[in-house]
Amino acid sequence: MLSAEIIAIGSELLTPTKTDTNSLWLTEKLNEIGIDVKLKTVVGDDELRLEEAVKDAIKRSDVIITTGGLGPTEDDITRTVTANAVGRELLYHNELENELRERFLGMGREMPEINKRQAFIIEGARILPNPNGSASGMLVEVGEKFLAVLPGPPRELKPMFENHVLPELSKLRGGVVFRKQILKVSGMGESAIDEAIAPIYSSYEKVRTSILFNKSDVEVHLTAQASSAREADILNNEIAQKIVRALGNAVFSTKGEEMEEVVGNLLKKMGKTLSTAESCTGGLIAGRITEVSGSSAYFIEGAVTYSNDAKMRTLNVPAEMLEKHGAVSAEVAEAMARGMRERARTDYAVAVTGIAGPDGGTEEKPVGTVYIGYADEDKVTSRKIIFPGDRYLIRWRTSQAALEILRRNLIKGQNE
Amino acid sequence: MLSAEIIAIGSELLTPTKTDTNSLWLTEKLNEIGIDVKLKTVVGDDELRLEEAVKDAIKRSDVIITTGGLGPTEDDITRTVTANAVGRELLYHNELENELRERFLGMGREMPEINKRQAFIIEGARILPNPNGSASGMLVEVGEKFLAVLPGPPRELKPMFENHVLPELSKLRGGVVFRKQILKVSGMGESAIDEAIAPIYSSYEKVRTSILFNKSDVEVHLTAQASSAREADILNNEIAQKIVRALGNAVFSTKGEEMEEVVGNLLKKMGKTLSTAESCTGGLIAGRITEVSGSSAYFIEGAVTYSNDAKMRTLNVPAEMLEKHGAVSAEVAEAMARGMRERARTDYAVAVTGIAGPDGGTEEKPVGTVYIGYADEDKVTSRKIIFPGDRYLIRWRTSQAALEILRRNLIKGQNE
Repeated sequence: MLSAEIIAIGSELLTPTKTDTNSLWLTEKLNEIGIDVKLKTVVGDDELRLEEAVKDAIKRSDVIITTGGLGPTEDDITRTVTANAVGRELLYHNELENELRERFLGMGREMPEINKRQAFIIEGARILPNPNGSASGMLVEVGEKFLAVLPGPPRELKPMFENHVLPELSKLRGGVVFRKQILKVSGMGESAIDEAIAPIYSSYEKVRTSILFNKSDVEVHLTAQASSAREADILNNEIAQKIVRALGNAVFSTKGEEMEEVVGNLLKKMGKTLSTAESCTGGLIAGRITEVSGSSAYFIEGAVTYSNDAKMRTLNVPAEMLEKHGAVSAEVAEAMARGMRERARTDYAVAVTGIAGPDGGTEEKPVGTVYIGYADEDKVTSRKIIFPGDRYLIRWRTSQAALEILRRNLIKGQNE
Repeated sequence: MLSAEIIAIGSELLTPTKTDTNSLWLTEKLNEIGIDVKLKTVVGDDELRLEEAVKDAIKRSDVIITTGGLGPTEDDITRTVTANAVGRELLYHNELENELRERFLGMGREMPEINKRQAFIIEGARILPNPNGSASGMLVEVGEKFLAVLPGPPRELKPMFENHVLPELSKLRGGVVFRKQILKVSGMGESAIDEAIAPIYSSYEKVRTSILFNKSDVEVHLTAQASSAREADILNNEIAQKIVRALGNAVFSTKGEEMEEVVGNLLKKMGKTLSTAESCTGGLIAGRITEVSGSSAYFIEGAVTYSNDAKMRTLNVPAEMLEKHGAVSAEVAEAMARGMRERARTDYAVAVTGIAGPDGGTEEKPVGTVYIGYADEDKVTSRKIIFPGDRYLIRWRTSQAALEILRRNLIKGQNE
């Protein structure tokens, strides 16, 4: 089994509030291809300590990954120090400087002179392109060892690792492959799920199963071990199908898709359209739906009717209804869904109104009280839920529940 | 300044889901008495790597803290390995074994034989009692260096550190306190900021400054060192004020506040109202604004006009304009802002339209092209920006830029 070490670089990672989360993601990716992480180091902008850490790592381990410290300022020491640690020069690459200049011009700015530093690359290293930032990565072979020098921001590091480092490392591995598959389940607790699926997963020796709670839902993680990716995928799929048979529609995702993707795929397949009307979630539902690329095919319009005036003006909620039942009520949630569907002329509409807190709760309607409205061509319904959690969680759980109600109705609609 | 290293021991800390949180707490405690954490290591139950880690740490740093690996089983290797690393014997302590036996009897159980291991202590070490568990800690002086060997469970580690290690370390120190303050800057790069403020921060010996890029903005982290928290805060404030004078309105936050809080506070103070109209961000801007508790005081309504129909229907964008200039244009961004402001009768409105990708880009308008519209009672304006990044980042950066344009206008309005 190959061994890896991860070195996270940056003084901010040595403060009481920052953890190195990149290494968790990297560990997962490395484990999936059968590489064991043996040691993790967090080091500040400290040349001596960093150089020693890199040298030790190269002595001890097969794969060394550094993250961070590739910015343009003086305390970004990774380029210089890793070059020293492997005993090579830093070479200036004119084409990298030109790319950087163009990048800055594209943002309407001149490239500051100090960014030139980012055009220096360790002698003999492969340059790893960074479409999401100005710091290129490097892949250096040191004898039989691999040193990958990656930028710190996760949005830059992850695609760079997946597209350029992982394929190289996978080549090193013959034998065993690990593949992961994630199922997501809505509306059931961890223990109920475990009871239902333990008889299934416990008969598979080559698949590791873990059950995790995540904000609103429960995830079932399957990690199959086999001699090829294809074989491992077949194994995962087999057990996933059995789990779906056991849990039914509660499984909303079998390949790790987010709820907004699942709903989007259903709408696209059915050729139907959607609109949303939001009060307490303030645009979060529309934001999640449109996070999915291609959502313009089915998402027509959203309204964030935060004030009562907006509810009346845009969704035709009657003033007397707001007066009589309050903005947070089943009647208003239904009127919002109906009004939105009519306004945007869509097949489906969902609406939410509630109290996200921390203020605004009453004895009758405590913080976390939410009404979710739903409208299609046949009916208008609503559901009351009281969510636990802080403002962030209440809003997130509300958005998830609204999408789940939509999903269940879409599945019914599809089967009719 | 004394330096410290923390070594977390245990293979479970090298899995994709576990982080070493003890080190955050320890870092905070150490910083409070003016000890800097220079390096953190996470190592599994691996004798060679652990011994090397401890030896390196003792060479480099003044205070070394290990956590974990003091249990009774065979993979609890910390006792043996730390003893080897400092070149001393493990000595059996009869009184510790007796205490352990009594402890087990108190729980109605016989002490298992393997727990005898926990009665071995490094020669010359001070024994640190553990009222919450069976593993004693150790405090070893190695020349002028301090090595503290602590158990992993936080409820055992924390009281042991506070009651027995901290007092010893405080004696080494005069009574120095560290405090942190975060400034956030919009519209300037890391390097331009560094150029502008290096003359300020470099004249403060007692304040450590670091400059970090974070998605759209740059953060300036100040960490002041003084003999009391009040003094350190005064020092931070002094340098923060000088930075604000140097960078002007580009500093949008001096106490770490998010952009949506800053804008919300300005609106609240001015007693003004806001509405939003979004295309490519799909509700993200409204979502961020309403993430702030109390935002109903100034946020009236948002529209997510994803389709052209919605732009016409809800924002009165003329069909001919959409036809002639396209939905992603300065004209439409301005019409959206104007239409939203009129619709919701608010003092201010911001609007965005753009191409978040990955599809939909053209040569003339590549992915990342965004127009941000702004309307107040005097004027309607727009600005074009081309953002780098993936769909997520383009959307996020667009939302940040829209809020920033609003903020700059609010500040102007406030000063008029």
